[in-house]
Amino acid sequence: MKHIDVIIIGGGPAGMSAAIWCKRLGVDHLLLEKEEKLGGQLTQIHNEIIDYPGLYAKNGKVMQQEFAAYFHNAGCLYRLHTKILSIDASSKTLKIQQENKIEKLHFHYLVLAMGSGPKLLEVPGEREMIARGEVYSATADRYRFKNKVVAVVGGGDRALEGAILLADADAAVYLIHRSENFKARSQYVDIVTKKENIKIITNTRVTSIHGEQCVTSIDLLNNKEKAFSLKVDAVFLRIGSKPNSELVKSLVKVAENELIVTDRIGQTSNSAIYAIGDICTNPLFSSIASSNGQAAIVAKYLSLLLTNEQTSKHKFISKFKP
Amino acid sequence: MKHIDVIIIGGGPAGMSAAIWCKRLGVDHLLLEKEEKLGGQLTQIHNEIIDYPGLYAKNGKVMQQEFAAYFHNAGCLYRLHTKILSIDASSKTLKIQQENKIEKLHFHYLVLAMGSGPKLLEVPGEREMIARGEVYSATADRYRFKNKVVAVVGGGDRALEGAILLADADAAVYLIHRSENFKARSQYVDIVTKKENIKIITNTRVTSIHGEQCVTSIDLLNNKEKAFSLKVDAVFLRIGSKPNSELVKSLVKVAENELIVTDRIGQTSNSAIYAIGDICTNPLFSSIASSNGQAAIVAKYLSLLLTNEQTSKHKFISKFKP
Repeated sequence: MKHIDVIIIGGGPAGMSAAIWCKRLGVDHLLLEKEEKLGGQLTQIHNEIIDYPGLYAKNGKVMQQEFAAYFHNAGCLYRLHTKILSIDASSKTLKIQQENKIEKLHFHYLVLAMGSGPKLLEVPGEREMIARGEVYSATADRYRFKNKVVAVVGGGDRALEGAILLADADAAVYLIHRSENFKARSQYVDIVTKKENIKIITNTRVTSIHGEQCVTSIDLLNNKEKAFSLKVDAVFLRIGSKPNSELVKSLVKVAENELIVTDRIGQTSNSAIYAIGDICTNPLFSSIASSNGQAAIVAKYLSLLLTNEQTSKHKFISKFKP
Repeated sequence: MKHIDVIIIGGGPAGMSAAIWCKRLGVDHLLLEKEEKLGGQLTQIHNEIIDYPGLYAKNGKVMQQEFAAYFHNAGCLYRLHTKILSIDASSKTLKIQQENKIEKLHFHYLVLAMGSGPKLLEVPGEREMIARGEVYSATADRYRFKNKVVAVVGGGDRALEGAILLADADAAVYLIHRSENFKARSQYVDIVTKKENIKIITNTRVTSIHGEQCVTSIDLLNNKEKAFSLKVDAVFLRIGSKPNSELVKSLVKVAENELIVTDRIGQTSNSAIYAIGDICTNPLFSSIASSNGQAAIVAKYLSLLLTNEQTSKHKFISKFKP
C-alpha cells in the first residue's frame, strides 16, 4: 500500500493552499479531489472578488484559474476524479476510487478540506428542482428574471443581497424567512424594506415546491399554522451552508452545526486528523483569506511534527503549540 | 475630536488586509502607519514569495507594490508618517503625531497590527553596528562577503538558511548558537554540518561586538565560562523576532514571549482591542496568508458588532462567537 505523509481531502482554496505549503516545506503530500477540476466552491462565485489582498479577480472562475496555475507551478501532487470511499482512522488508511479503480492509501496525517455546500429545505419538490438544473446565481442570472416572479428563501446576507439584485433587475421578489428578524447586515435590511418590488414574508416556511418542467408554485406555512401558496418562476435557496462533514462524523468530533471541531492549529479530536476551511469554519467568518491562513498553519505544524518525529526532539514539539 | 469606528495601527500585510476588509464591509476605518510607506516587513523579504496562493512575487518589494495597489484601488483610508504617542483604553482615544502635528482620535474598536522586528542580543557594540547600517540580508547581500569572514548568530531556520547562503557565496561562516541543539529543520542542520566553510560553535553566546567604522571582531563566552574572540567582517543576527507590543503592554494581556494574547477571533483581554498578524502570532506559524486570514476574521466580527450595536440584536452577537 502506498504511504503518503500528508493526505489532503478536497481541492478548494483551503486544500490547494495546504498542498502549496506542503510542497514549499518539503512535505510528502497528496491532494485528492472528487471533481474533474480543482477550485471547490470558487467557480460558484459570480461576483468580483475584492477581498483577497494582492489578487483581484472579476469572478471566482478567474481566481480558480490563478490558484490552479499557482498550484501547478509549485509542483503540488494531486489526483482528480477521486472519491473517498472510507477512512479508517485506526489503521490510517483511506479507501479511494479513481475512475473504476479502487485503491488503499496509508497516511501519517490527514487534512480534511472538503468545504461546505448549500443547506437544503428538505421539502418535496426541492431535489427535483435541483436535478432539473434550476439552481441560479442572483448575480449572474438575475436579468433572465426580469418581469418574472421569484422567491428568495433565507434571512442572512446572501438572501437579502440576492433579493436586492433580483429586484434591481426588475423581478418581483418574495423574500421568505422563517423567523421574525433578519440576520443580514442592517444596510441590506434597510434596502429590502424600501424596495417596492420586494414583498417580505417573515415567520413563514416553504413546505413544498411544485412544477414539472420548471418551478410553478410553492406552498408555505406561517407560524400561525396558516397555509397558502404563491405562483413563482424560480426559487433561490439562501438558507445557509452545510459543512461536508458527513464522511468523517464518526471519526472526529463534530459540533451541532456539523462543523468539525478543531483547536487553533487545526487539529481535530483525533491527533492524526486536521481540518481547514469551510468544513470547520463558521460561515460568518469564512473567506478565501482565512482558509489559506489555516492551511499555512496546519502545513507548518505538520512539517514540524514530521521533522521532529525524524529527529525525536520531542521537547521542542510540546513547546511550540500555542 | 474625530471619531473613527475602527482604527488599525500598522500598515503591514495584516493591517492592510484589515483595512481592505473594513472597506469591503462598509466599516468606517483608518489605518495608521509610522513609516513613509505601507508594507511593514514585506520590503525586507529578499527571497521570492512562493506561499501566497494566487500571487507569485519575486521578492517582498514586488508583493508590497501589489498589496499597496490593491489597498489604494479599494479606497482604504490611511495616514502615513503617523506615530502613536499614547493609547488611552478607558476613554478610547489615541494621541498621534503626524509630522509636527499632535492630534487625538477617538475609536470604537482598535486593531493592533504593529507586527514584529528582529530580536537583539542586547550586548555592547550591537546598537552602534545597526546605527552604522551594518544590517544585511543573506539573500541579497551575500556576494559582497565572498572570501570574508562572517558570524551568523542563531539556531533557527533563518540562521541556518543564512549560513548556507553565505557559505555558498564563498564566505567563511561562524554559526554561533547559545544552545546545544538547533531548532531549524533537519534538512538545514544536515547541510550546515557538511559544509567545510561553516564552523559551528554551539553552547556559546556573543558578549560584545567591536569595530569603529565597521565590525572587526566579536567576543564570545561558552557555557564552560571560557571567553574568546573571533575576527569577523560582519555579524548576521538571526536570533528570532520580537513582537512590537511595547506600547500596549499595560493595556492588554501579553504573554511571556511578548506576544499579545488573543482569542480565536483576535480579541485581546480588552474587548475594544483586537490584534492580528505577527504581534500576536508565534513566529513558527506566521505567514502573509495567516495574517490576512486573521484580518478578515477580525474585520468581519467588528462589522457584525457595529451592525448589531446599531440594531441592538444582542442575542445574535452572543451566538456567533466561536
